[in-house]
Amino acid sequence: MTLTHLDAQGKARMVDVGDKAASRRQAVAEAWVHMQAETLQRILDGGFEKGDVFTVARIAGIQAAKRTAELIPLCHPLMLDQVQVELTAEPQHRRVHIQARCRLEGKTGVEMEALTAATVAALTLYDMCKAVDPAMTIEQLRVCEKLGGKTGHWRHPALTSQTD
Amino acid sequence: MTLTHLDAQGKARMVDVGDKAASRRQAVAEAWVHMQAETLQRILDGGFEKGDVFTVARIAGIQAAKRTAELIPLCHPLMLDQVQVELTAEPQHRRVHIQARCRLEGKTGVEMEALTAATVAALTLYDMCKAVDPAMTIEQLRVCEKLGGKTGHWRHPALTSQTD
Amino acid sequence: MTLTHLDAQGKARMVDVGDKAASRRQAVAEAWVHMQAETLQRILDGGFEKGDVFTVARIAGIQAAKRTAELIPLCHPLMLDQVQVELTAEPQHRRVHIQARCRLEGKTGVEMEALTAATVAALTLYDMCKAVDPAMTIEQLRVCEKLGGKTGHWRHPALTSQTD
Amino acid sequence: MTLTHLDAQGKARMVDVGDKAASRRQAVAEAWVHMQAETLQRILDGGFEKGDVFTVARIAGIQAAKRTAELIPLCHPLMLDQVQVELTAEPQHRRVHIQARCRLEGKTGVEMEALTAATVAALTLYDMCKAVDPAMTIEQLRVCEKLGGKTGHWRHPALTSQTD
Amino acid sequence: MTLTHLDAQGKARMVDVGDKAASRRQAVAEAWVHMQAETLQRILDGGFEKGDVFTVARIAGIQAAKRTAELIPLCHPLMLDQVQVELTAEPQHRRVHIQARCRLEGKTGVEMEALTAATVAALTLYDMCKAVDPAMTIEQLRVCEKLGGKTGHWRHPALTSQTD
Amino acid sequence: MTLTHLDAQGKARMVDVGDKAASRRQAVAEAWVHMQAETLQRILDGGFEKGDVFTVARIAGIQAAKRTAELIPLCHPLMLDQVQVELTAEPQHRRVHIQARCRLEGKTGVEMEALTAATVAALTLYDMCKAVDPAMTIEQLRVCEKLGGKTGHWRHPALTSQTD
Repeated sequence: MTLTHLDAQGKARMVDVGDKAASRRQAVAEAWVHMQAETLQRILDGGFEKGDVFTVARIAGIQAAKRTAELIPLCHPLMLDQVQVELTAEPQHRRVHIQARCRLEGKTGVEMEALTAATVAALTLYDMCKAVDPAMTIEQLRVCEKLGGKTGHWRHPALTSQTD
Repeated sequence: MTLTHLDAQGKARMVDVGDKAASRRQAVAEAWVHMQAETLQRILDGGFEKGDVFTVARIAGIQAAKRTAELIPLCHPLMLDQVQVELTAEPQHRRVHIQARCRLEGKTGVEMEALTAATVAALTLYDMCKAVDPAMTIEQLRVCEKLGGKTGHWRHPALTSQTD
Repeated sequence: MTLTHLDAQGKARMVDVGDKAASRRQAVAEAWVHMQAETLQRILDGGFEKGDVFTVARIAGIQAAKRTAELIPLCHPLMLDQVQVELTAEPQHRRVHIQARCRLEGKTGVEMEALTAATVAALTLYDMCKAVDPAMTIEQLRVCEKLGGKTGHWRHPALTSQTD
Repeated sequence: MTLTHLDAQGKARMVDVGDKAASRRQAVAEAWVHMQAETLQRILDGGFEKGDVFTVARIAGIQAAKRTAELIPLCHPLMLDQVQVELTAEPQHRRVHIQARCRLEGKTGVEMEALTAATVAALTLYDMCKAVDPAMTIEQLRVCEKLGGKTGHWRHPALTSQTD
Repeated sequence: MTLTHLDAQGKARMVDVGDKAASRRQAVAEAWVHMQAETLQRILDGGFEKGDVFTVARIAGIQAAKRTAELIPLCHPLMLDQVQVELTAEPQHRRVHIQARCRLEGKTGVEMEALTAATVAALTLYDMCKAVDPAMTIEQLRVCEKLGGKTGHWRHPALTSQTD
Repeated sequence: MTLTHLDAQGKARMVDVGDKAASRRQAVAEAWVHMQAETLQRILDGGFEKGDVFTVARIAGIQAAKRTAELIPLCHPLMLDQVQVELTAEPQHRRVHIQARCRLEGKTGVEMEALTAATVAALTLYDMCKAVDPAMTIEQLRVCEKLGGKTGHWRHPALTSQTD
């Protein structure tokens, strides 16, 4: 197996997907934003405020997914059918879980789009809370699951063992 | 202390920096991309290929830093004086260390720009190697250091204790 | 009927169009820019100048239509087959009429693209004339007509009654 | 007085602001989105939902303000100090009022940025509710007030007479 | 034959491609960057440096191809299947040859994308070397070959005569 | 003298301009688009049509100048004070001359912005006429003149000898 983004001479290129068949594809990515207990509490306090911080992060993630091909040099432009970003407070772990799901019918996978959505949602959360908690850290940013294409159904090994 | 991106009613806004004085500012952010030993070896094998994978990631990070205000909704547009992205292979830990440094003379800090550069460099690394190692994970994405502005010199607590 | 951009919990999301069939679609939007009689006269005076102001507005509208999904957070990215923007002076009413028409073969309607094209053409007109007439006002920005998709042919009620 | 965006031959150009002094500037723009009484009621019903629709529109407006120079061909790129977008339900008039305020210290006014923010917020509102009320119309999109620069304080004539 | 981007009244428009059939298309464009012998030597000296300058230019060209529709007002947005940019040193002529190849399955040709990729790669080369050789010149930027669509196979006349 | 975009290890970086003083700067770039005599004639025929083709190219060039830092990876973001693009038919040589001039007060030169404006104007001209003359070629794309900064006044050697 080879690094498909490098040609025979090791030069970067955008892989030719002209001969690939379009299929229904889906990818899920996730990340955790760790913070101080008080920071999370402050986000959760009050109805509006919670809605707002999470909504801004969600919108930022959705918009970023649409611009993945501009950010990642060798990504193909795609037309996403759906982007969904969910933020869940996990107060017992002093962190927020972020999950992004992308779907499309196309020739290439959408894991980069899902990763980009999750990442930018996490960075937006950081941005909104950095004045009170600059040491916030983003952990375990990864693709959890892919469906469609040649590979079929793939789950991150860490998740597979967790469930079994 | 309050979440400065939320006004009295908890509604998101872009903070007014009109009265802040411009000062020299710098921020450093970092992340680690964990992978299989063979993936890292493959990146390192051969002169060109290594140069290439790391160069593409570095360029992607630099370009992303310039577009931070488009990605993060409440970030102010800024004119960066410098962006620097460094990738270092750490084969003993089967990971790559990414460090991004941004500098400018301005009214707001540049930690979001440094975080964005480090993140997009990491995602680009993932993109280029995902065919051989889809389980790669990005860890400990955080701001390490900030200089300038009202806060003066700030270092991430985890790093301070490490060095002392 | 529900607001399709809000899920069961009222959280914003980009609607899944994966199961929708692609069809030929078209949308027309319009707006009027009201101004002083002398402003309109100045635009109309001389061959080049008229061509120029209207051409710049037309080009701006066409380019904006292509970027609708970047501006409107929950819009799907689409590949427009055609964008057409027309500006017509209506000196008797001291205003300019702007009409934008978008076409594509796709899973979602193109009314947001048509609205965006008409709007940005109107804003560009304002920008070019604001030094002489800052009180210019944009009125009745709306979708006039849609074709294709599940809804079939839709016309704005105000227009239907006008014609009948 | 001449149309400053046209040179002696009537050709479009980006006006030279090199000799203008930087000053504190502010501009306020507004628009109204008219809709059916039930549409507005649906937006207002429930805590989250209201917050959400208005928050998404607010974020879209803020982000668009930062990209004004990309949308309006002859606008100068600027570094905004602040963008603020407010949406207010006016149920008695079956409409939503949108007001956008932009501030910066610079060589050119920020009325195009305020107009762009108000417009894109209005279009986003339309996008989120168009499935239930496609006949929604945007009215009276205009600059209400400008501060700073050579002109000093300017108010839209319609507003001046209203208040006096 | 008429200029297809102008309608009957000579007004610019984005041509309607709704009725065109999608087909496999390819286009190749090229350019030469002329420079001083020492500039080219400096680029070629050392392994990393060469890789780097050419890699940055290649990446810039690939990324620009994806944004062609944003840069060229009347271009249709497309989803490229492949972009390839190659830089070849021609020391005997004190110049670098740049060739860009784009492929897609779509309704419109991809020559503008290939030209944009070649151009931006050339400009990036200029940018990286301008401190030592500001007189560098880009020559013979042109489409060499097109495949697919109604026209079938087209080669630039200058190239046809060269080979025959 | 060294290639300033490569650090000691030959890795690409965005040069630090933090210590450079801001000064008034200007750059002029040019290019020629060669075409068939009939193509140029067709552009020149009729008042509107000429205005239109040249206006669209001019607007495209101005807009591209503002996005130079997005296209050229190691360019600094800047705030242009002025962009001017001029197209002149040279029927005796069957070509169009394009000249772009950029001005700003800043820490870095604006030659990349001027080159980008001239290039994108040329590509737009190609795009609008390619259906009738696909063999059109862009020649002698270069910086003609720079003012400001450490270097002071620089003219392209070819131009200096021409005039003297």
